[in-house]
Amino acid sequence: MSTPTTWNVTPVAYVRSTRVEAIDDDWDSVATSIEMCAPYDERSLLGLGEFSHLEVVYLFDRVDPAAVCNDARRPRGNPEWPEVGIFAQRAKFRPNRLGVSCCQLLDVSGTSLAVRGLDAIDGTPVLDIKPYLAEFGPRGPVHQPAWSHELMAGYFGRGT
Amino acid sequence: MSTPTTWNVTPVAYVRSTRVEAIDDDWDSVATSIEMCAPYDERSLLGLGEFSHLEVVYLFDRVDPAAVCNDARRPRGNPEWPEVGIFAQRAKFRPNRLGVSCCQLLDVSGTSLAVRGLDAIDGTPVLDIKPYLAEFGPRGPVHQPAWSHELMAGYFGRGT
Repeated sequence: MSTPTTWNVTPVAYVRSTRVEAIDDDWDSVATSIEMCAPYDERSLLGLGEFSHLEVVYLFDRVDPAAVCNDARRPRGNPEWPEVGIFAQRAKFRPNRLGVSCCQLLDVSGTSLAVRGLDAIDGTPVLDIKPYLAEFGPRGPVHQPAWSHELMAGYFGRGT
Repeated sequence: MSTPTTWNVTPVAYVRSTRVEAIDDDWDSVATSIEMCAPYDERSLLGLGEFSHLEVVYLFDRVDPAAVCNDARRPRGNPEWPEVGIFAQRAKFRPNRLGVSCCQLLDVSGTSLAVRGLDAIDGTPVLDIKPYLAEFGPRGPVHQPAWSHELMAGYFGRGT
């Protein structure tokens, strides 16, 4: 193929958040907004307010590229969970350091999006914002291993 | 901030598919696999087979960067649908040309993943593969405008 082997990506927005350090859990307690960069303006967001949720693609820019895992590790280093491949977990120490999250859209004000449940810290570069469409959700029964349910128990909120 | 304004991303895999041209609909009829690139190997995929679904981040590499829309357009150019911002639709003519899709994982064989419902054509560079966790789905009621339901009517299958 004649395609190049690397591509450049450029932030379309940045996360503004009360959380400035990478903490694993309790993301619903964090007040977060997405602030668009020029040239993206109100027209780039036209009609977005009709959607309840967004999918946000962002970069784990605070992860040292030297810390990226290419093979397998225990999620969160927890000895009670199995060693799994980096593509079988959502850890931030991953090739290309890309995060994808679904969050609630609370408000659109000019070029600022107030959101809830976005697991990205202050200053995180946002590479794409997509509306969440129910049709893009999983089709057919979802199953996943027990460790992944345990890991997620306190991720968005404690006891909620 | 001292962060750079662009980053490089590199494919971790490529899509192999019976669909070689960008056609909008009927993605479930397409036989698709994801073929890992070196250095990613069986260990990078360890335990992935315990998940029913994947989230795949890929690059719309066949979209001419000059064709990217930064502001607003009618989805599929359909005059019956409203003009909406590029971040209020999932069109491929988007900044950074990133696609994100949830697909069913049918089989893991060595470094080849057989999948169903991945809306990416043959040769598409894959930038990340994440396991789908139910906890990462939308929380709270989902709503979206009527045009988006109409657009999705035949997306994965016709009459299914």
